[in-house]
Amino acid sequence: MLSRPIAFVSDFGHADEFVGVVHGVILRVDPHARIVDVNHGVRRGDVMAGALSLLRAIQYLPGGVALAVVDPGVGTSRAAIAVETEWGHFVGPDNGLLAPATAMVGGALRVVSLEAEEFRLPAAGSTFDGRDVFAPAAAVLASGEADLTDLGPEIAPETLVPLLLPLVEHGEDRVQGQVWWIDGFGNAQTNVSPDDLALIGIGSGDELQLIMGQGSHVIRWGDAYQAPGPMIHVDAHGLMAIVVPGGSAAEDLTLHEGLSVGLRSLT
Amino acid sequence: MLSRPIAFVSDFGHADEFVGVVHGVILRVDPHARIVDVNHGVRRGDVMAGALSLLRAIQYLPGGVALAVVDPGVGTSRAAIAVETEWGHFVGPDNGLLAPATAMVGGALRVVSLEAEEFRLPAAGSTFDGRDVFAPAAAVLASGEADLTDLGPEIAPETLVPLLLPLVEHGEDRVQGQVWWIDGFGNAQTNVSPDDLALIGIGSGDELQLIMGQGSHVIRWGDAYQAPGPMIHVDAHGLMAIVVPGGSAAEDLTLHEGLSVGLRSLT
Amino acid sequence: MLSRPIAFVSDFGHADEFVGVVHGVILRVDPHARIVDVNHGVRRGDVMAGALSLLRAIQYLPGGVALAVVDPGVGTSRAAIAVETEWGHFVGPDNGLLAPATAMVGGALRVVSLEAEEFRLPAAGSTFDGRDVFAPAAAVLASGEADLTDLGPEIAPETLVPLLLPLVEHGEDRVQGQVWWIDGFGNAQTNVSPDDLALIGIGSGDELQLIMGQGSHVIRWGDAYQAPGPMIHVDAHGLMAIVVPGGSAAEDLTLHEGLSVGLRSLT
Repeated sequence: MLSRPIAFVSDFGHADEFVGVVHGVILRVDPHARIVDVNHGVRRGDVMAGALSLLRAIQYLPGGVALAVVDPGVGTSRAAIAVETEWGHFVGPDNGLLAPATAMVGGALRVVSLEAEEFRLPAAGSTFDGRDVFAPAAAVLASGEADLTDLGPEIAPETLVPLLLPLVEHGEDRVQGQVWWIDGFGNAQTNVSPDDLALIGIGSGDELQLIMGQGSHVIRWGDAYQAPGPMIHVDAHGLMAIVVPGGSAAEDLTLHEGLSVGLRSLT
Repeated sequence: MLSRPIAFVSDFGHADEFVGVVHGVILRVDPHARIVDVNHGVRRGDVMAGALSLLRAIQYLPGGVALAVVDPGVGTSRAAIAVETEWGHFVGPDNGLLAPATAMVGGALRVVSLEAEEFRLPAAGSTFDGRDVFAPAAAVLASGEADLTDLGPEIAPETLVPLLLPLVEHGEDRVQGQVWWIDGFGNAQTNVSPDDLALIGIGSGDELQLIMGQGSHVIRWGDAYQAPGPMIHVDAHGLMAIVVPGGSAAEDLTLHEGLSVGLRSLT
Repeated sequence: MLSRPIAFVSDFGHADEFVGVVHGVILRVDPHARIVDVNHGVRRGDVMAGALSLLRAIQYLPGGVALAVVDPGVGTSRAAIAVETEWGHFVGPDNGLLAPATAMVGGALRVVSLEAEEFRLPAAGSTFDGRDVFAPAAAVLASGEADLTDLGPEIAPETLVPLLLPLVEHGEDRVQGQVWWIDGFGNAQTNVSPDDLALIGIGSGDELQLIMGQGSHVIRWGDAYQAPGPMIHVDAHGLMAIVVPGGSAAEDLTLHEGLSVGLRSLT
């Protein structure tokens, strides 16, 4: 029987053997394992960035196991968990990393704390739980070798650490949002949806004012990348993104993740 | 039955989940898919660099499907295509990216425009065709779930956008070529072949003059990396490359992709 | 029958198609091949760094074939080898790269020089042995299509190029070691073990003096990443590592690979 695929997100980068060792551990448990490397370029220790990356990806991943490790608290008392959902299982630290994606697929049905010694690797130190705790758990869940509750005691889903995603604020002629993600092309995805803008009367083709701190720009809501110069459009995830076709919005407009941005109607 | 392998080239980089999401979409269509990540480090939007990378790789890849996405015109009216060849299928934008590799394997037999809605993912925006258009097409071609002409209307191969590769110019005692590729080791591959140099009487072991703009260097045609200092040799693709054993020719000689270089006989 | 997995380490990086072409060559030989990309971020030409990366990884990799290519001497007379061990086969250049990992798994049982033309790809140049020599050898060993001695003449294991790993020196109240590895998080792994420190009376919880060149720091031996500020602890490989929780020890303390470090008891 085909093992369920394991989708793997981390901040391990590609300069060391961290990712490869996790693959190795999984394949030692299950020679038939199939692993999808979703993203290992999450900024080191940036739980929010990792959570958003997994959230953007989850609906495009085959149901199975999501293994996510952005874990600045490794070695502390934060729990290591596996979460059962309608989509499949999520394995990672209990620091909010898994919260948005599990919510997106309907929420946690059951949760366990990964404490069963038989499914952990013995290790000299306690700093590489990706290898010693999360990889073996993901492998046995994917292969069906273990049931969720074999991995440790159940804990109540409502006790998990949440991740607070910033909300969009609505004013009379303005919405206030945040840059969520600067992608590798320099595009700046915000947490503002087209519906947020519709509430203040802004639609495709309109000009609007983009306000950041003291400065502002007048930009147009365009389609895809058809015009040169800065513009705002609906991106591939259905959110408003600030882009410069053929260039980098992040560089040209000095945007960064977490930046507060206002969008104001000019009509 | 084993699905044919999908060889995947892009400029998506490794800082985001773009590559992983494309893998996910393919595996949702075909759980048995096998994907070879050929190169995702193509400079953003550099169609020529992507085309040359695919061209260098193609003869070493197992026949199947080549999925290539370097697509600065995404969201514009450029066509999305699938090309049938003796080697297998090529899937990507119609912007010249596929042209050199398809020519290398004997040329296009049939081409379709990827317009069939049933093989595209519904999407909020039109900026991630790698995920929404090319990945599903590659997956169904690899698995055999669809025939080429199920994916959209046929178009004439001769109407495809070509890629103009620079030609080598021959003078009496000199050939004029171009740096095609600076690899990660700093080696500079040119478009000049050993046969081009034979025409002006230069062969292995000879000294020759390397001319760039106002400057020039005298270098020797050597074997592999056996001598220190700048040299020229036949590289792993059969083309003349400027190299500095143990160092970086690109840094030491200030070479870059696209640079015009003259090679002149000194005898 | 399932082919044995191929674990692949190199300094090829992710900016070019080198890694992908090696995958392609392997899959052309064996469509069922499974490849684990252990690490392709080894510093270009740094044989020691590649050897240590493979050494750290080997016990976590499924038995099979280890393909390792950090090969500054490609094109020279250094031998290309395959080594048989209890763990499986190691394939790579005879420059010390394979030595620590093969020793770790019990040493070489038999070695051959990869000279059999039928298992090499014909190539214009001799600068990409990863593609032309090592990949085909790894593929046929993994699939079982060839036996070790089909690949070339046997050579005596004791004639292989060794890798000299620096030893820890013990003084009365001080051990002198070396930084072996700066990982992507900025943690500095040394070659000093907890047992080395026990010999001079240092144990967990103690303060000690870290001496580098003219400077020194007083740091505590802590557990994992629980305290802020520089500390030393037993890392995930059982070696003493200098770390800054939430920060980069390499940046904060100006550490680099190869740096000599003294550790002195303060009690």
